[in-house]
Amino acid sequence: MGYIDELGTAAKKAESIMTGIGTDKKNDALRRIAEKLIGSKDIIIKENKRDIENAKINGMSDAMIDRLTLTEARIEGMSEGVRQVIALKDPINEIIGGEELPNGLKVEKIRVPLGVIGIIFESRPNVTVDAAALCLKSGNICILRGGSDAIYSNKCLVGIMRDALSEAGLPEDAVQLVADTSRAVAGDMMKADKYIDVLIPRGGGGLIRSVRQNSTIPVIQTGEGNCHVYVDRFADIEKAVNITDNAKTQRPSVCNAIETVLVHKDVAEQFYTALNKKWNGKVRIYGDEICAKYMDTERAATEEDYATEFNDYVIAVKTVSGIDEAIEHINRYGTKHSECIVTINLDNALKFQKHVDAAAVYVNASTRFTDGFEFGLGAEIGISTQKLHARGPMGLKELTTYKYLITGNGQIR
Amino acid sequence: MGYIDELGTAAKKAESIMTGIGTDKKNDALRRIAEKLIGSKDIIIKENKRDIENAKINGMSDAMIDRLTLTEARIEGMSEGVRQVIALKDPINEIIGGEELPNGLKVEKIRVPLGVIGIIFESRPNVTVDAAALCLKSGNICILRGGSDAIYSNKCLVGIMRDALSEAGLPEDAVQLVADTSRAVAGDMMKADKYIDVLIPRGGGGLIRSVRQNSTIPVIQTGEGNCHVYVDRFADIEKAVNITDNAKTQRPSVCNAIETVLVHKDVAEQFYTALNKKWNGKVRIYGDEICAKYMDTERAATEEDYATEFNDYVIAVKTVSGIDEAIEHINRYGTKHSECIVTINLDNALKFQKHVDAAAVYVNASTRFTDGFEFGLGAEIGISTQKLHARGPMGLKELTTYKYLITGNGQIR
Repeated sequence: MGYIDELGTAAKKAESIMTGIGTDKKNDALRRIAEKLIGSKDIIIKENKRDIENAKINGMSDAMIDRLTLTEARIEGMSEGVRQVIALKDPINEIIGGEELPNGLKVEKIRVPLGVIGIIFESRPNVTVDAAALCLKSGNICILRGGSDAIYSNKCLVGIMRDALSEAGLPEDAVQLVADTSRAVAGDMMKADKYIDVLIPRGGGGLIRSVRQNSTIPVIQTGEGNCHVYVDRFADIEKAVNITDNAKTQRPSVCNAIETVLVHKDVAEQFYTALNKKWNGKVRIYGDEICAKYMDTERAATEEDYATEFNDYVIAVKTVSGIDEAIEHINRYGTKHSECIVTINLDNALKFQKHVDAAAVYVNASTRFTDGFEFGLGAEIGISTQKLHARGPMGLKELTTYKYLITGNGQIR
Repeated sequence: MGYIDELGTAAKKAESIMTGIGTDKKNDALRRIAEKLIGSKDIIIKENKRDIENAKINGMSDAMIDRLTLTEARIEGMSEGVRQVIALKDPINEIIGGEELPNGLKVEKIRVPLGVIGIIFESRPNVTVDAAALCLKSGNICILRGGSDAIYSNKCLVGIMRDALSEAGLPEDAVQLVADTSRAVAGDMMKADKYIDVLIPRGGGGLIRSVRQNSTIPVIQTGEGNCHVYVDRFADIEKAVNITDNAKTQRPSVCNAIETVLVHKDVAEQFYTALNKKWNGKVRIYGDEICAKYMDTERAATEEDYATEFNDYVIAVKTVSGIDEAIEHINRYGTKHSECIVTINLDNALKFQKHVDAAAVYVNASTRFTDGFEFGLGAEIGISTQKLHARGPMGLKELTTYKYLITGNGQIR
């Protein structure tokens, strides 16, 4: 039996126990996790240092090392995150539909866990605790496969969570770590449809494509964000500048930041001039000829730029002939994440919202609002950019499925 | 550009047009399809005969030839099916949630089509019209890949539907047939995630596994049904016999028929004796030693039998020590489709419904009710046995996803 078979078998066993566990017990386990994280700060930081030392030897960039680093404050943040999950309503066993059929059969549609969730992510150890807490609250078993760069941190964090589960009287295999971070084992995991119900890759486009190509398990792809603002002919220019600035620069590294701004030719001069003044060199601009007349562009934008998620203080700019060209551009290059039109024209607002194919389509607001917390979901395991199952921010409910319970007194067909 | 690229490009173009089409126009196209099917009976039957002749040359079984054959009555049935779809409520643009956020952003969650749906199915030409009608009503574009055995029938039926779409002023590429039924093209189709949003295989376990293994497109697997009846210690034996009989013999070839009956040892003698009398040789029985004492078994049941979907007048029988063994057996061998307990004990009924992992879990009723029409969905494109997106009978709503529309007046983060 291979390594993934072992984890999978243990997961299925844990699943059968978790099915009967109520909210109080799950919350008790979460409370213990939150407490233990605080109580284990020293050992977590010590194990995290081992990862950081290796990362330095391996020449990891400072930005990446920063993402990898756990401080006292960050551990407190993780613990607080777990406490927030305790406060969320348990989605499991909610009756979401039902009726009595003409033949007297009572049909109930109830919310149940997805089952065993595999999560493949990169080197941010806070994801380990976040994801496990959300899976636990929603009654799911999780198998976490983090990056090799964070292996000591992840082993330590998962160990703490498993201890807390045991103390709460829950199966510790409800949270499992793939401790062997070899490619071969990752490949086995992607084929483990016998044990894993859903696979969620969290990370860059390369990781997502690899999972999509190789997995035989249903996948929810999250977090690829090539987003746009379209400044319509009927835009309030001041609002357009503020929204573009916010969507690009408030946090350029995240998926709901924009990568390209599309500008109607009739307002190009006014908009470009105002935005150029606002940014004053803060953002590197790849523009077209019209843009270059009014903005300090670095070079001309290419087809490749339009398809690129810069995740940085870089933007592509394109002047368009009208809303149709803008919609076509977005549907061609976008990743179906978050898109925005700035306009005061109702027809154009409605047209844009209908024809742009994305999880979240904005009129006159920053794309940065696409977020589980902002949308009131209370938490977020990721932002889905696919159409199957869940779209946009995924909270606890998006980690569930349903089953039909049918009760009769001998009905036959 | 390969063949599938051509179909895919045409599908994306049709999708962008269909996005703006309202219910009346879709219903007009469906009405024209229903009429044209009736008006084209002769040519449909003529083309179908070509398939039947080839099938006979290729040595197809009589049962399969029957499934392939289109008669006047069957064409009328297909036409009537399309008219039933017209009568269903259009699911698209339904507002399924929303609120005004504290910052004044108005958030609406609305139902939208999945996009381009690929359907891979075997040699039943009625599926061609059924599936196309459901996709059309739910605003989706479909690419249909039927079996090579039905190619002349399918070409004819799809041609009729495309003519009707054109006449209704809709893009004829909203319904497309993969006319090249080679394996290579089927392989290309499974990798066409650039064009196809969802792939639905309809057919046997082999087809589903092949799609699951090879597809890079999100898949909804449907129709595998290894279903069970568990006769509890507290069963009403007469009801248990009737439910078992109905679930096995009313239509053995369908996915919601049962394949194994599990019987509590304390009621084994009574139940086996009564069922044996009822069937009187009608069903071939693979049983255990206790069963063989009271029933006319053909041979002992094997592990392989427990994992087999017989789809025939054949059943595996197993005597169990209690409800826990029954639940364990079902969760091990079942395909998560439809499962039933016969009992008058409330605790056992609740336990079974909670712990059996299946789309539909019955107490005291035949598994044969798992069906889109029976459940009041009005139609059915298949019965999902996976947990992602949709579970159990899939009607029009299950062919949709949602998007968030967010409207503001300049909000930034």
